Amino acid sequence: MSLTFKPQMITPISHFNKTHKNPSISTTPIYHFNQLTTPHIVFRSRKMTPHAKKMTSRMMIKSSLIEPDGGLLVNLVVPEDQRGVKVAEAEGMVKVGLKKIDLEWVHVVSEGWASPLKGFMREDEYLQSLHFNSMRVGDGGVVNMSLPIVLAIDDECKERIGGDSDVALVGPDGTTVAILRSIEIYKHNKEERIARTWGTIAPGLPYVEEAITPAGDWLIGGDLEVLSPIKYNDGLDNYRLSPKQLREEFDRRQADAVFAFQLRNPVHNGHALLMNDTRKRLLDLGYKNPILLLHPLGGYTKADDVPLDVRMEQHSKVLEDGVLDPETTIVSIFPSPMHYAGPTEVQWHAKARINAGANFYIVGRDPAGMGHPTEKRDLYDPDHGKKVLSMAPGLEKLNILPFRVAAYDTVAKQMAFFDPSRAKDFLFISGTKMRTFARTGESPPNGFMCPGGWDVLVKYYASLQTEEAKSVAVST
Amino acid sequence: MSLTFKPQMITPISHFNKTHKNPSISTTPIYHFNQLTTPHIVFRSRKMTPHAKKMTSRMMIKSSLIEPDGGLLVNLVVPEDQRGVKVAEAEGMVKVGLKKIDLEWVHVVSEGWASPLKGFMREDEYLQSLHFNSMRVGDGGVVNMSLPIVLAIDDECKERIGGDSDVALVGPDGTTVAILRSIEIYKHNKEERIARTWGTIAPGLPYVEEAITPAGDWLIGGDLEVLSPIKYNDGLDNYRLSPKQLREEFDRRQADAVFAFQLRNPVHNGHALLMNDTRKRLLDLGYKNPILLLHPLGGYTKADDVPLDVRMEQHSKVLEDGVLDPETTIVSIFPSPMHYAGPTEVQWHAKARINAGANFYIVGRDPAGMGHPTEKRDLYDPDHGKKVLSMAPGLEKLNILPFRVAAYDTVAKQMAFFDPSRAKDFLFISGTKMRTFARTGESPPNGFMCPGGWDVLVKYYASLQTEEAKSVAVST
Repeated sequence: MSLTFKPQMITPISHFNKTHKNPSISTTPIYHFNQLTTPHIVFRSRKMTPHAKKMTSRMMIKSSLIEPDGGLLVNLVVPEDQRGVKVAEAEGMVKVGLKKIDLEWVHVVSEGWASPLKGFMREDEYLQSLHFNSMRVGDGGVVNMSLPIVLAIDDECKERIGGDSDVALVGPDGTTVAILRSIEIYKHNKEERIARTWGTIAPGLPYVEEAITPAGDWLIGGDLEVLSPIKYNDGLDNYRLSPKQLREEFDRRQADAVFAFQLRNPVHNGHALLMNDTRKRLLDLGYKNPILLLHPLGGYTKADDVPLDVRMEQHSKVLEDGVLDPETTIVSIFPSPMHYAGPTEVQWHAKARINAGANFYIVGRDPAGMGHPTEKRDLYDPDHGKKVLSMAPGLEKLNILPFRVAAYDTVAKQMAFFDPSRAKDFLFISGTKMRTFARTGESPPNGFMCPGGWDVLVKYYASLQTEEAKSVAVST
Repeated sequence: MSLTFKPQMITPISHFNKTHKNPSISTTPIYHFNQLTTPHIVFRSRKMTPHAKKMTSRMMIKSSLIEPDGGLLVNLVVPEDQRGVKVAEAEGMVKVGLKKIDLEWVHVVSEGWASPLKGFMREDEYLQSLHFNSMRVGDGGVVNMSLPIVLAIDDECKERIGGDSDVALVGPDGTTVAILRSIEIYKHNKEERIARTWGTIAPGLPYVEEAITPAGDWLIGGDLEVLSPIKYNDGLDNYRLSPKQLREEFDRRQADAVFAFQLRNPVHNGHALLMNDTRKRLLDLGYKNPILLLHPLGGYTKADDVPLDVRMEQHSKVLEDGVLDPETTIVSIFPSPMHYAGPTEVQWHAKARINAGANFYIVGRDPAGMGHPTEKRDLYDPDHGKKVLSMAPGLEKLNILPFRVAAYDTVAKQMAFFDPSRAKDFLFISGTKMRTFARTGESPPNGFMCPGGWDVLVKYYASLQTEEAKSVAVST
């Protein structure tokens, strides 16, 4: 699928607030933004006014909306002038092979999304993550760390490493991508890892089947030195802004609030309602320039999720169609793989956005959830995600914005916050339902998604059917 | 089995230190007391000298070795003068039945072992316990809370409660024992609870089969008011000292260090070696009067564990035989039921002892562990318990004393710390092996356990065989 959207999605804004003092806000962990409102959409010129340009140069400030975890943003990419030496050094080391998901984690850790983590976890970090969803840091404080970020190796690899203290990590294409220093090898207690991360060991958990069950029985931790920035050469690398780049962009835009929206699905008008409503409420609170970080997850997703390139094209249309305001929105790719681990994973999603400079995080119903793999029910209580997130250690400094569920209001003929007092007027359009619409060429209710975005999905599902038809023709 | 030991097991000590200043000790979480030493056993007069009596009255101080979690020791037993009113009030409330284990939890919570928890957990507390093994408290701090302390009810009970805000809790014998106030009813996500607590959902986990699988699909949380102190009338109630009573006893003894030893098995000379060695090392550190809290678990244990009354008799013999010093030892019963949840449960065992006033906690190999219920291996990595304990949130103020494993040294003919450099000299005597010895009437190696203690076990297993023979005779 070709990429049709353009980089100016990331645009400067034209209005600046002159004061950057945060409005006085209670520090209680949850904000309940749950009153019904209509979406608030503002169309503004995408060109920077002379005044704005002047203000930009005069008022350039360091992004200080929120400190990265541990105080310093981790950057594990070797400086250019040391690259040659390190590459040569790596050549003499035992090689450890990375799967695609492992490489995604190298990318994530190297850019500081998991700050202050500096590599794949050693056992102390792993145990803290598994048992406490958090880690102690040097100053006596605690940072959130709900997912084990670990690298598995098998017996043969462990034997090859022997007593070495450093190894070279080699990507799926054979390129040496990193050095892992001062390694520690410890047992990969898969059953316990799965049970404590997902709250079940039922067969059929996508990440488990992809990355844990087939993996080796040992974990190897250590400090990462990444030889050059991780690139995918899929036409989307420009959208993979690092936490550092995002912070710089927020500074450039003089954001006084950044609210992050994590997603792995196409944006429908219910999502847009949440995002626009959040912006309106932040303005009501006194913020002058809240910026939306629309932050689709770009790493591993399960087979029936819509692929990243299609989603990015769809998101582009949503901005082109004016459902979201390009001037106050940054669309960027979050490079993490997806665990589908519900309340455990949503903490990771939020924590990584702290490191990227977002001080508000939107959380909806059943974040990072999915159906139970073997029973006819949701794997997680749909309310647990936001509850766990609001109480999670290390996330106190982040403002959590839980939202009520949005659905299609058949009376107003638009997506709206669900009103239980007239439940019968609302239509819930599940992912499965949406896929059925797109596949059969049937249109969803008017107002469910902007036409440009919907067309992207219809074309994607049509291409899938063509693929399926071809594959059936070949196999018969 | 009749009770043959006597209450003077809890005896005053005859020597007091005059200064109560704590020696300067680093606050790092782990002390490695792992050098080999010979046991240090001191026999002292069990009578209080006139000098000691005088000192006791003059130097009585509040136990300030360690603060209870949350700052105040919880006591949920209704004062005598309000009992009548509360009992009458409870009679008008919907009755919720307690199983034996539920009643043990009422006991535990009512005496403040779980301070600052004031009842069965509401959902916020439950989720924090399950995900973070800790809970936030009012002052912004965190207390450890690794096991969910919850009460399950079924659909029928939930229906009976309806919209009431308070219910009465009724013990297995029909007595109304407590009121639960301002209740909250929420879903009992059993699979997730089990997976996150035990790190497996394999069938055969004793606590799960006893107390979770057969339990209802709802949990009911609220504030407890216990109508009168929980008693078992099994001849052992005098040994069930509450945290308050233990703190008073430590004060009375002018302890300047209290080291707790949790156990659910008979005391062999390896255990005694650990305990005596700890005392010696605390003395070496400058403490003048370290007191051992020998603290057998008294609640639910699995069927093949030695029952509490037998263990108490065995512990009594160990003190009578002089293997442990009665003057510097307090034997008391810890009323909690056993989960066999390894690294998760050991935190609870340690946390409860903070509330009881112990500032040192001994942890050995594989604490609260057991064999995997369906695979031929330990359920937990035997080292994870002490590692997790040393990093657990809310336990920073407790001094964790990890110990190397003790085994029977066939050369020295006594229990000794295992020396890997002459591994072949050591004999590991497992619980199963010990039971086989006791059952067959075979003696264990000389020096494994004091003869008085061993006799108790032999008699217990002989009585079991008689029971079994009778039951076989009846069934044939």
